[in-house]
Amino acid sequence: MTDQPYGVHSEVGTLRKVIVHRPDLSLRRLTPSNNDELLFDDILWVEQAQAEHDAFVQVMRERGVEVYYHHELLAQALDAGFEAKQHAIEHAVTHLTVGPALVDSVRETLAGWRGDKLARHLIGGLTKEEFGVAELDGHSLVAASCHPREFILPALPNSLYQRDPAAWLYGGVSLNPMYFHVRLLETMNQSTIYHHHPMFAGEDFAYWYPYAGEDDRFDEESYGNAAMEGGDMMPIGNATVAIGISERTNPRTIEHLALSLFAAGAAERVIAIEVPKARSYMHLDTVFTFLDADKASAYPPFLEAAVAFSLRPGDKSGTLDVHREPGLRQALQDALRISRLDIVPTGGDDYQQAREQWDSGNNFFALAPGVVVGYHKNQFTNRKLREHGVEVIEIEGFELGKGRGGTHCMTCPIQRDAV
Amino acid sequence: MTDQPYGVHSEVGTLRKVIVHRPDLSLRRLTPSNNDELLFDDILWVEQAQAEHDAFVQVMRERGVEVYYHHELLAQALDAGFEAKQHAIEHAVTHLTVGPALVDSVRETLAGWRGDKLARHLIGGLTKEEFGVAELDGHSLVAASCHPREFILPALPNSLYQRDPAAWLYGGVSLNPMYFHVRLLETMNQSTIYHHHPMFAGEDFAYWYPYAGEDDRFDEESYGNAAMEGGDMMPIGNATVAIGISERTNPRTIEHLALSLFAAGAAERVIAIEVPKARSYMHLDTVFTFLDADKASAYPPFLEAAVAFSLRPGDKSGTLDVHREPGLRQALQDALRISRLDIVPTGGDDYQQAREQWDSGNNFFALAPGVVVGYHKNQFTNRKLREHGVEVIEIEGFELGKGRGGTHCMTCPIQRDAV
Amino acid sequence: MTDQPYGVHSEVGTLRKVIVHRPDLSLRRLTPSNNDELLFDDILWVEQAQAEHDAFVQVMRERGVEVYYHHELLAQALDAGFEAKQHAIEHAVTHLTVGPALVDSVRETLAGWRGDKLARHLIGGLTKEEFGVAELDGHSLVAASCHPREFILPALPNSLYQRDPAAWLYGGVSLNPMYFHVRLLETMNQSTIYHHHPMFAGEDFAYWYPYAGEDDRFDEESYGNAAMEGGDMMPIGNATVAIGISERTNPRTIEHLALSLFAAGAAERVIAIEVPKARSYMHLDTVFTFLDADKASAYPPFLEAAVAFSLRPGDKSGTLDVHREPGLRQALQDALRISRLDIVPTGGDDYQQAREQWDSGNNFFALAPGVVVGYHKNQFTNRKLREHGVEVIEIEGFELGKGRGGTHCMTCPIQRDAV
Amino acid sequence: MTDQPYGVHSEVGTLRKVIVHRPDLSLRRLTPSNNDELLFDDILWVEQAQAEHDAFVQVMRERGVEVYYHHELLAQALDAGFEAKQHAIEHAVTHLTVGPALVDSVRETLAGWRGDKLARHLIGGLTKEEFGVAELDGHSLVAASCHPREFILPALPNSLYQRDPAAWLYGGVSLNPMYFHVRLLETMNQSTIYHHHPMFAGEDFAYWYPYAGEDDRFDEESYGNAAMEGGDMMPIGNATVAIGISERTNPRTIEHLALSLFAAGAAERVIAIEVPKARSYMHLDTVFTFLDADKASAYPPFLEAAVAFSLRPGDKSGTLDVHREPGLRQALQDALRISRLDIVPTGGDDYQQAREQWDSGNNFFALAPGVVVGYHKNQFTNRKLREHGVEVIEIEGFELGKGRGGTHCMTCPIQRDAV
Repeated sequence: MTDQPYGVHSEVGTLRKVIVHRPDLSLRRLTPSNNDELLFDDILWVEQAQAEHDAFVQVMRERGVEVYYHHELLAQALDAGFEAKQHAIEHAVTHLTVGPALVDSVRETLAGWRGDKLARHLIGGLTKEEFGVAELDGHSLVAASCHPREFILPALPNSLYQRDPAAWLYGGVSLNPMYFHVRLLETMNQSTIYHHHPMFAGEDFAYWYPYAGEDDRFDEESYGNAAMEGGDMMPIGNATVAIGISERTNPRTIEHLALSLFAAGAAERVIAIEVPKARSYMHLDTVFTFLDADKASAYPPFLEAAVAFSLRPGDKSGTLDVHREPGLRQALQDALRISRLDIVPTGGDDYQQAREQWDSGNNFFALAPGVVVGYHKNQFTNRKLREHGVEVIEIEGFELGKGRGGTHCMTCPIQRDAV
Repeated sequence: MTDQPYGVHSEVGTLRKVIVHRPDLSLRRLTPSNNDELLFDDILWVEQAQAEHDAFVQVMRERGVEVYYHHELLAQALDAGFEAKQHAIEHAVTHLTVGPALVDSVRETLAGWRGDKLARHLIGGLTKEEFGVAELDGHSLVAASCHPREFILPALPNSLYQRDPAAWLYGGVSLNPMYFHVRLLETMNQSTIYHHHPMFAGEDFAYWYPYAGEDDRFDEESYGNAAMEGGDMMPIGNATVAIGISERTNPRTIEHLALSLFAAGAAERVIAIEVPKARSYMHLDTVFTFLDADKASAYPPFLEAAVAFSLRPGDKSGTLDVHREPGLRQALQDALRISRLDIVPTGGDDYQQAREQWDSGNNFFALAPGVVVGYHKNQFTNRKLREHGVEVIEIEGFELGKGRGGTHCMTCPIQRDAV
Repeated sequence: MTDQPYGVHSEVGTLRKVIVHRPDLSLRRLTPSNNDELLFDDILWVEQAQAEHDAFVQVMRERGVEVYYHHELLAQALDAGFEAKQHAIEHAVTHLTVGPALVDSVRETLAGWRGDKLARHLIGGLTKEEFGVAELDGHSLVAASCHPREFILPALPNSLYQRDPAAWLYGGVSLNPMYFHVRLLETMNQSTIYHHHPMFAGEDFAYWYPYAGEDDRFDEESYGNAAMEGGDMMPIGNATVAIGISERTNPRTIEHLALSLFAAGAAERVIAIEVPKARSYMHLDTVFTFLDADKASAYPPFLEAAVAFSLRPGDKSGTLDVHREPGLRQALQDALRISRLDIVPTGGDDYQQAREQWDSGNNFFALAPGVVVGYHKNQFTNRKLREHGVEVIEIEGFELGKGRGGTHCMTCPIQRDAV
Repeated sequence: MTDQPYGVHSEVGTLRKVIVHRPDLSLRRLTPSNNDELLFDDILWVEQAQAEHDAFVQVMRERGVEVYYHHELLAQALDAGFEAKQHAIEHAVTHLTVGPALVDSVRETLAGWRGDKLARHLIGGLTKEEFGVAELDGHSLVAASCHPREFILPALPNSLYQRDPAAWLYGGVSLNPMYFHVRLLETMNQSTIYHHHPMFAGEDFAYWYPYAGEDDRFDEESYGNAAMEGGDMMPIGNATVAIGISERTNPRTIEHLALSLFAAGAAERVIAIEVPKARSYMHLDTVFTFLDADKASAYPPFLEAAVAFSLRPGDKSGTLDVHREPGLRQALQDALRISRLDIVPTGGDDYQQAREQWDSGNNFFALAPGVVVGYHKNQFTNRKLREHGVEVIEIEGFELGKGRGGTHCMTCPIQRDAV
């Protein structure tokens, strides 16, 4: 175990600390009219989602993991001082998000709220009605043309999936440029936490993205050009990072990450793996996760077609050496220096494999080597894992999975041992 | 006629100068696989589109209008000096658009190109094959994972519609924040022209957007929050601007524009008009354009449901006064100080009206009061206009209209008289 | 209580007998690739769906209802004699469903199966692999061009919703012409049961559709022109039928039904109610169901816009008298001869109402006047019903609801008292 | 040349007689709201479409081809006697298409119309307003719930593509079961012509589909199970038929056709070719047509992936022998007994090939061996054909092609020589 309080040194080493987000207000705003735009396949029954989530947290705590809640961290960060609140408000409430006519009054009002309430609306959204902006109709076109239940500040229901907006790789964190506009502000909330929460503010760790050494502003400029999400990013050990080239993570941003890691000596190799662009394959971790030092779960149709590239530091500083790998399994075995990576396929026949992959049946989250948490419903796959010697702790995922995410998606490990 | 070389003082006063874009390479890249993403309903036969466009230009020149070509202006601007080329290249080719591994070599190569070739690819896109980047596969993941005919720099086929990325309102121009990511770089090309082309560089005119007074950088940050396009913006005269609240132009950005215009004394009133969000209604000018000092063309279902707000300067500097108008026609009559605005509906029965509206049948471009250019195919509507005393000059629009744009969409007037 | 063994004389009188379908093989075939085509929004975890369904059946049995299973009825009907099996096989396996080269061998094989196995595949589908047609590849293009896991006979996962393909109205049943092709064969299975199962074969009841008096063949001809589904059909009492004009039930077929009912004297009035065409509104019972003699549940946006027509027998036999009703509530009050119909709206704010309507929050199934079964998750609505004096029995519907159906959708009452 | 007045003995032999449909009322009903449902990608300017079509007819007549108009044939058939009109009306106007309350009055009215007017509305559709059913609102729910401009009888705009609903193969015609419901009635109009027009009524020719020997009723029952369209069907000569297995033509129906042809000795081999299911590939003739005795046009990505099966008569009557071919080109060469089939690819680079394929650039119609008609806009492909010695006659297809059809799609040859 490392001496540093934060750092993720593998995908399956003993987990020490993790951040999650309990289902909340943002999910109560999902309706059949907006769920597609907000990237959910269905609406969630929030009470049930909370119960499922609580059970997940309970499982982790019983195994000795320190579990932090995103909402609480954000609230505490906002209460940590004037600068924190200002940082958050000035990035969320701008001339361009609420319009010049409202910006001052919204900022002023929000500045008067305590951390808990402010965090609630930075994650859960703020409607015109909640803000009470009606009296401003005479001064703001935004207000005048807005329905009472429309959002002045957007809801961020995908905050449930803490894996994506911030991801630790070894001794540093990446504050990720999200692919979809509706998830952009999630990263801003993460930025507020890492830069202002007392738990992180004084600590020594690197920022892999935005570029190390840059100032602390939220790099919104990059949107649409940069795109990288935590569901694609895996510190698999041996100074190697595996990363999906997916709908949501593009090669240019992977190059940035690789250069950043190489410059700091934090990694020696990045294995970039092409993930076909399909709803059911949104990130690498929807089709592939690690289970143990030498075991992984994979969806067979993905595995058969996988194309991988290795990136290593180039001859000159700031350059890369890139080559295409003959096969994914070989590349991983070589990187991990193991003789054989045991890849456990999704369980059942063709139909059942497609069904369980869809229901996060390849998305496992390890608490320790060979000990993973997954959804109860993926019974064929869970059985298969057990046959391969993996301990599978099951939680219910009726509601949690409706945004197509499993235990790996919902967790942002911040301290995990190497294997 | 004004003394200033540039300025647009009405929608229908005598037209002096206009910018258009002749169909080119960017449209040869449209295929059935990418046309939806690039906002075209169909692919275009480019030779025919050029012939149709040439006829349109001919019509305008015969009426004494000076017609400038976007491609030529961009090429000339790029050749105007080191700074211009640098400005363009540094905004189009970045760590985030081509990746850090390619950025230097792409910039270097492009810097060596003459304006004409560079303009060709800044508008038409640059494929990996064209750039000849294959030898860089060993150093760039972007290159290694890219098909030879994929784009390193994107094609901008919507450059055909010069109305949108830059729009003149009275004595200034707005460099617009485009709604769709695929059109963002069009504004950058406009920025290069206005800031570096000798025709504009020394001239005295205002920038309404980005904020007057700001530095000259292309305001890409705003993407996804700011959205305003020229097809919604009309300097209708009498210090009034009509503007659509549409899928592509949002109220917050309209507030910015209004404040900018009011601060400079360039306008006294902005009439914001809600345009339903539908493919066939993408901008205000797809359902409503002016024909004469007291005549306009409108699609009846739009007109019946139109909701309008007037924005005027507020009591204090930097504030707005907003009120909802009882009716659109009345608001326009009041603003224009005319007793009756003659609104000519789209021609034919319900079916035909819907058909001609779709084919840019409400999208007319005035060369002078009561003299407009429109597509030949909209025969029912054109006949109706003539019955109302409007001279309709017809051009063919088989190919030009496939991106759902007419003569108003294709033109960026830069000098037009008041009425 | 009526003396007849079958007959449904109201929507809320004491329920005596009902048919349901326990989730089965057909749902194990749902995958992310085919669920849209098969009209499901998501895939189901079948074991959980079975447990939920068992609990629903338990609730009904505890209240004294006789519950029949569709699969068992079909299996028993198929075992009832040569004709029954022949009827089913000849309609499901034809020159046009499996092709002329396979038809004889498939029919012959299926004829050798016992009722249970045959029922299993008539509902659950039959793949090439299961049938073992590989040896027929040399004689059948259907076989040669078919993947082993493709269907030779289709799966009918919507059999879960027994309400739709067959519906009782007073003393007769309608074997409905389903709107979507993928549900067509469900009606054929119903036809086999009603015409051949010993429980029905000797009984005296009417067929409202296809036309009474017609021969027993499955009326497939009508597809695409006729469309009527049980979720729109409600025998509300007092010789009145309420019926939705929806995506899946068209006016022409309603006319047939009305003429058939009027000819037999089984009803005096049909109230046809327009249901907007949207995924969340697929049938009348998704936005409106009865709770008690004078109480109903309705989704407010539907109720506000509802347009209704009354159909009554015309002057001459075989003709109709049609008039538009001033309001839905009034029409129902008038038909039911009650002074006030208490319409309980969906619970919660705008967001929550839309969420609960989506989750079958207006889709209740009455076991007796004022006693209904609904999904547990619709907590705001359930609370509201209780405030209005309705007893709400809750069942879990995590999986059952994924095809957008509730307790009303899953049940085909075959004997229910008048109120 | 054959002695028979009708019969199509090759794809490229000298053309003698052909049926086409001049753009008409049905296309004036296309709007942006209904064009997708009616299978058009865009709306058409009808006058221009007529001019383009007239030019196409002119080209054929100049080469000595007898050109018949579908509308005229239908009108003449309807005027041929009471039975013809009754046949058409009774199939188009039924209890299920207009509802039982309107059926008698609509039939009676239509029976009073002359052939020309009746044909106009059987193809072009009939709105409530045109029929004047308003006075029937009190007796028909169909009428009462119908907007004045809604259709009582549907418009059939795809009648433009005469290839599909009826197709000649050697000495007989197939009246095809159309895949999409919106095209079903086109076949009924063809049936009226072939069974009642004096030109055909007394002639001796076979019906390949519906089954030879069956009675003359329009086989609507098959819908959804049978599906076969003329764009997939090619009598390539040497007693061989090539046929696409496409979205719109399924293997079971191909088996029927093959058995029908084999039983009559009209063909000895059917080569079934898999066409990927995509909008741009809707029929075999959208990616592959013959140009000459030993020349064909093909879209390269189709050709590379093509899988083909040969069907021949089986050992016993009524059976088939099926085997998968090693390659398409070889199968065609073998069937045609030529040493080399010269396949001319679509012209231009990847982009241009995809563009011209989309614009019917592989859809040529031969007037004689080596003499074909195609759209002018496909300049790269047309040039390529000329390089291969093919004479390409060009017509404009701005409007004609918007339903994704070319000259092959628009023509139903009824007499063509063998090669």
